[in-house]
Amino acid sequence: MSVYRLSVAYDGSAFAGWARQPGLRTVQGELEAAIGRILGGAEVGLTVAGRTDAGVHATGQVASFELDSEPPDRLAERVNAVLPRDVSVSRCELAPDGFDARRWARSRSYRYRVLTAPARDPFEEGRALWWTYPLDRAALDECASAIVGEHDFTAFTPTETEHVRFERVVLRSEWVDEAEDVLAFEITADAFMRNMIRVLVGTMLEVAAGKREVADFLALLAGAPRERAGETAPAHGLYFTGAEFGDGRTFVHPS
Amino acid sequence: MSVYRLSVAYDGSAFAGWARQPGLRTVQGELEAAIGRILGGAEVGLTVAGRTDAGVHATGQVASFELDSEPPDRLAERVNAVLPRDVSVSRCELAPDGFDARRWARSRSYRYRVLTAPARDPFEEGRALWWTYPLDRAALDECASAIVGEHDFTAFTPTETEHVRFERVVLRSEWVDEAEDVLAFEITADAFMRNMIRVLVGTMLEVAAGKREVADFLALLAGAPRERAGETAPAHGLYFTGAEFGDGRTFVHPS
Repeated sequence: MSVYRLSVAYDGSAFAGWARQPGLRTVQGELEAAIGRILGGAEVGLTVAGRTDAGVHATGQVASFELDSEPPDRLAERVNAVLPRDVSVSRCELAPDGFDARRWARSRSYRYRVLTAPARDPFEEGRALWWTYPLDRAALDECASAIVGEHDFTAFTPTETEHVRFERVVLRSEWVDEAEDVLAFEITADAFMRNMIRVLVGTMLEVAAGKREVADFLALLAGAPRERAGETAPAHGLYFTGAEFGDGRTFVHPS
Repeated sequence: MSVYRLSVAYDGSAFAGWARQPGLRTVQGELEAAIGRILGGAEVGLTVAGRTDAGVHATGQVASFELDSEPPDRLAERVNAVLPRDVSVSRCELAPDGFDARRWARSRSYRYRVLTAPARDPFEEGRALWWTYPLDRAALDECASAIVGEHDFTAFTPTETEHVRFERVVLRSEWVDEAEDVLAFEITADAFMRNMIRVLVGTMLEVAAGKREVADFLALLAGAPRERAGETAPAHGLYFTGAEFGDGRTFVHPS
């Protein structure tokens, strides 16, 4: 029995998210089909570090699967040759016995990209949120700093949720200048709830535009109801960038 | 009479090039239609610094048009609101009397992007040539240096050409590291012939892969026939990045 660990990148625009769903085009569905085809029809089941929603991208997703047979040569290359163009395996390697991308992940990292140019950019279409409202950077930085640590994020996930615990531990939370016209929010946490980053970003942008006080944002981190937080920022600005695992190996792919 | 100068960016993937052609989707056609619509049905005729072929992108294209009426407010913003998502006006301003983006351009700049990663990158799909052959960087640099100056570029344009002069003056020619996995060829010249940059790049890549000697490449710069040069690199790696004008104003938009 061998365990494989894959690093995967995808443009989420044309996917109904990571998780396989009958009748929908998903990243998991495409990957499992491609790997199965390379392995002569074997059924493989992938586990993943970060289940992304419809439209969310990934530069450093990590998935794993078990295989009874010997490791085939050049697996990544051959899988890429049959995968559609919007998903790619950037690395494939044998993992330690028992490795599972979901259970072994100690933290996950995401980036949310905001295009701040006065005009649309055709090359950022579907890849960043185009935002033309005022952006008070000091206010953004203050909000981001406050997110670090353990908080009750109830305000930042839909009410009709299946989560049982609403506390999450945020290890890093920071706005960075990715390019002249691209501001990015980078966050690493032990785990995330549904829509959590998108509601955090949507609410921070309301603060930055002067529609909401910083103090009001800070108060939300103590477990306020969902309706007190802001809009859910669109999926197309969000990227899964990497995961860190319990064996100490880091799979963060900055891009 | 007013003359307008526009800076334009477009993802060339879904365009049959810049120049208007009946029945085809072109950048000029979309832009003229959008501007005409904003101006209440006026017919405008754009001239352009660099006529790009089908599939070629632009980050800093420059176009101009004349208008009898007064300059409307917020023209760029309003044109962008009706333009399709793969083209955008990043700037619109009044130009000096008599300005013409084609005739006033003293030089044009292009970039050709090469993805050198071992695996495909979904985010570079259609935006860079994915090249997995060996890349002798020293050889590339030697070829690029030799391109600077005045040469007869007959070898680098199709035989069935309408050009009457085959000499062009190259002001800059350089391979640069755009990102960890992206190598880019940047070139500025007084003017370019059809496919010239794509054949230069295709031939240099053959040198870099060891399929052709540097000396062989250098010999082509003295007016060899087309069949002596290499393949035409695909359009999707090429970007028009800017033009410099006779009035001394520079419109180079690095991206």
